[in-house]
Amino acid sequence: MAIHGYDPEITALLVIDPYNDFISEGGKIWPRLQAVAEANGCVPHMLQVLTAARNSRIRVFYAMHHRYRPGDYEGWKYIAPIQKAAWKRKSFEFGTWGGEIRAEFQPLPGETIVAEHWCSSGFANTDLDLELKKHGIHQLIVIGLVAHTCVEATVRYAAELGYDVTVVRDATADYTEEAMHAALDVNMPNYANAIVSTAEIVGSIAAMRPTLVETAGFD
Amino acid sequence: MAIHGYDPEITALLVIDPYNDFISEGGKIWPRLQAVAEANGCVPHMLQVLTAARNSRIRVFYAMHHRYRPGDYEGWKYIAPIQKAAWKRKSFEFGTWGGEIRAEFQPLPGETIVAEHWCSSGFANTDLDLELKKHGIHQLIVIGLVAHTCVEATVRYAAELGYDVTVVRDATADYTEEAMHAALDVNMPNYANAIVSTAEIVGSIAAMRPTLVETAGFD
Amino acid sequence: MAIHGYDPEITALLVIDPYNDFISEGGKIWPRLQAVAEANGCVPHMLQVLTAARNSRIRVFYAMHHRYRPGDYEGWKYIAPIQKAAWKRKSFEFGTWGGEIRAEFQPLPGETIVAEHWCSSGFANTDLDLELKKHGIHQLIVIGLVAHTCVEATVRYAAELGYDVTVVRDATADYTEEAMHAALDVNMPNYANAIVSTAEIVGSIAAMRPTLVETAGFD
Amino acid sequence: MAIHGYDPEITALLVIDPYNDFISEGGKIWPRLQAVAEANGCVPHMLQVLTAARNSRIRVFYAMHHRYRPGDYEGWKYIAPIQKAAWKRKSFEFGTWGGEIRAEFQPLPGETIVAEHWCSSGFANTDLDLELKKHGIHQLIVIGLVAHTCVEATVRYAAELGYDVTVVRDATADYTEEAMHAALDVNMPNYANAIVSTAEIVGSIAAMRPTLVETAGFD
Repeated sequence: MAIHGYDPEITALLVIDPYNDFISEGGKIWPRLQAVAEANGCVPHMLQVLTAARNSRIRVFYAMHHRYRPGDYEGWKYIAPIQKAAWKRKSFEFGTWGGEIRAEFQPLPGETIVAEHWCSSGFANTDLDLELKKHGIHQLIVIGLVAHTCVEATVRYAAELGYDVTVVRDATADYTEEAMHAALDVNMPNYANAIVSTAEIVGSIAAMRPTLVETAGFD
Repeated sequence: MAIHGYDPEITALLVIDPYNDFISEGGKIWPRLQAVAEANGCVPHMLQVLTAARNSRIRVFYAMHHRYRPGDYEGWKYIAPIQKAAWKRKSFEFGTWGGEIRAEFQPLPGETIVAEHWCSSGFANTDLDLELKKHGIHQLIVIGLVAHTCVEATVRYAAELGYDVTVVRDATADYTEEAMHAALDVNMPNYANAIVSTAEIVGSIAAMRPTLVETAGFD
Repeated sequence: MAIHGYDPEITALLVIDPYNDFISEGGKIWPRLQAVAEANGCVPHMLQVLTAARNSRIRVFYAMHHRYRPGDYEGWKYIAPIQKAAWKRKSFEFGTWGGEIRAEFQPLPGETIVAEHWCSSGFANTDLDLELKKHGIHQLIVIGLVAHTCVEATVRYAAELGYDVTVVRDATADYTEEAMHAALDVNMPNYANAIVSTAEIVGSIAAMRPTLVETAGFD
Repeated sequence: MAIHGYDPEITALLVIDPYNDFISEGGKIWPRLQAVAEANGCVPHMLQVLTAARNSRIRVFYAMHHRYRPGDYEGWKYIAPIQKAAWKRKSFEFGTWGGEIRAEFQPLPGETIVAEHWCSSGFANTDLDLELKKHGIHQLIVIGLVAHTCVEATVRYAAELGYDVTVVRDATADYTEEAMHAALDVNMPNYANAIVSTAEIVGSIAAMRPTLVETAGFD
């Protein structure tokens, strides 16, 4: 793959579903992600990318899954299997620790949390596209969970909507290596303009750092 | 206009922006709406329509405007005039009484509040279309505020997205009679399938009431 | 209103519905538009703005209404009044002169005609947003027909989706002065960042012209 | 999986990309699909499902990929890898045999071809959602090409937008068995309410056939 360039003015980091239920010890779904996530260092890598983005003043957006609330689905005539599972499991239950963003990933002032998504794509039925447009963003760096569901869905939508997308392959995880492989190696190469490692993207982001040159005066 | 029919299975009431700031004594924007709203009995009519819908088990959805929160707009490169005004005015400020739904209009269990809209249309950048689809809704009865901004925008979007729309002309209000006229008489007749009075729609809704016939047995 | 700036890199001209049926002598709907259009010089103004944009290498996009084809509406369960009228009137009938773009407004190579819209907004159910994103556009200059239907609908959608919008008030027209006034003076000031004359926008566009400096050599 | 029911009033067949380039001997991309498609009988199965739908008066919609035209991509600042490939390959070139629907799959009067999609999802930037709403459709039966790109993308979008989706597993194909498996077994079970064989769906569709009972009179 050729070198992929970034323009800091139009680049944002998109963090998908950094909920305790997903990526914290004790979270409801963590046991299913743990093997793959620990093997590739997903959580520390996510943090490295986030820190790099903040240091380089790259804008940060959070695409968060719908947090379960009682009554959400009772009146629905149609429901996708993944929604049925979230209902049964009460994933990211509103008002519980599992439905909170893991402490190290708490948004800072000036960072944007968009409306919760109901299925898998951070764009579908939310204001993510609007917020990106309002900030003039065209290039997305994507990290988070889960590779073959929310991450892939968001990457596919981003491509459909016209964004340039980079996925960080060791800052995501999945329930099995097979699902991870389907997402990263079979599907995303059609939609992501670059699929890179944390080390690579941290280097690219550092290169976008605003130059602060203070000339020392003479006295 | 010919008689417009409703099928209760696919009909919903859509209540737009029943915030204290809009329709309660003491609300920030109420003084600008008061003259038109009191002249046509907007608030009591809204309540009559809501009550009729509940009595007939017509589904109720709430399309609510974004509540102002500090930091919302600071990073935006592009902003519409109506958003600039909402920013300056801190309309429907989150955590304040003005940003609460007026007491009589509080949603009941089983009613759906969709994600807040950022501009005027209840559909744009929200899950309103999704929630309507999930409930199998194709016909909308629309009430609320403000006629030529959020109500008209939502009606136009509804028509663009394929819904059958009814507007209740004395269950909405506006800043001036001229703006009210532009919305109800110039623009909406292109997009709304029916524009009716509260008395008319309450009659239509009552006719949709599920029949509960219990035959008393003999003993 | 403060001076509104344009960045040529992210600015496009959007031409709405320059069909013969609308703006040519002999067109089906021209008789209804003629009075307002001739009073404000709509058609020559549209051409001036288009020419200015081309001279300054501002990108040009065409948002075109659905051209009537037999069978379009027969299976629809729900239809907006404006669609019913287009059906009955066979507006912009496919394969007829009325459904062709007026000769002087023919797109040039490199200009983009987006998918036809079914109701009024050039964005709804089309690839307009995608094409604008793909070209990096954030600022739109809007001309065309009809002020209170397709033009207003497109302006409202543009604002909802996050674009900065300028409307050229004497490069649009309407069926009545009242409808024109409702669009330009009552509604659009909420959504358009600037509403200007042809003379003003032609000046702004000329200022965006790429500078071509040829230094004369000495001999 | 439990038995999945269909209501003929709200069910449609969605045929994705039945272009000669994909599924006809001599098509540009057929050589890449041939092995998987012949192994599972994809093309005859597609035809069986289409015929069954027509016999049962189930509505048919066609979601067609953008046909290559010169100038499509030259001005784009951002482009997805799958679009770059379509550009280079001139897939489904407009005006050529490869860009025509394979003869046996030609739409009949009353069937709907929606606007062409630019990436993979039949919904993105098109009028597919609108046409489905206008016909009151909530349940989709999906057949066509290619399993892990356009079919999966359309299925994912359908689920995001609120539709009930059935995929016919032997009426689709892919470039490799691995990609087919990723689509049908890893990803789609999250989004499709049923994944069935042609034999199964043909049975379900036949059961939806309108009953035509003519009682023979006595004479």
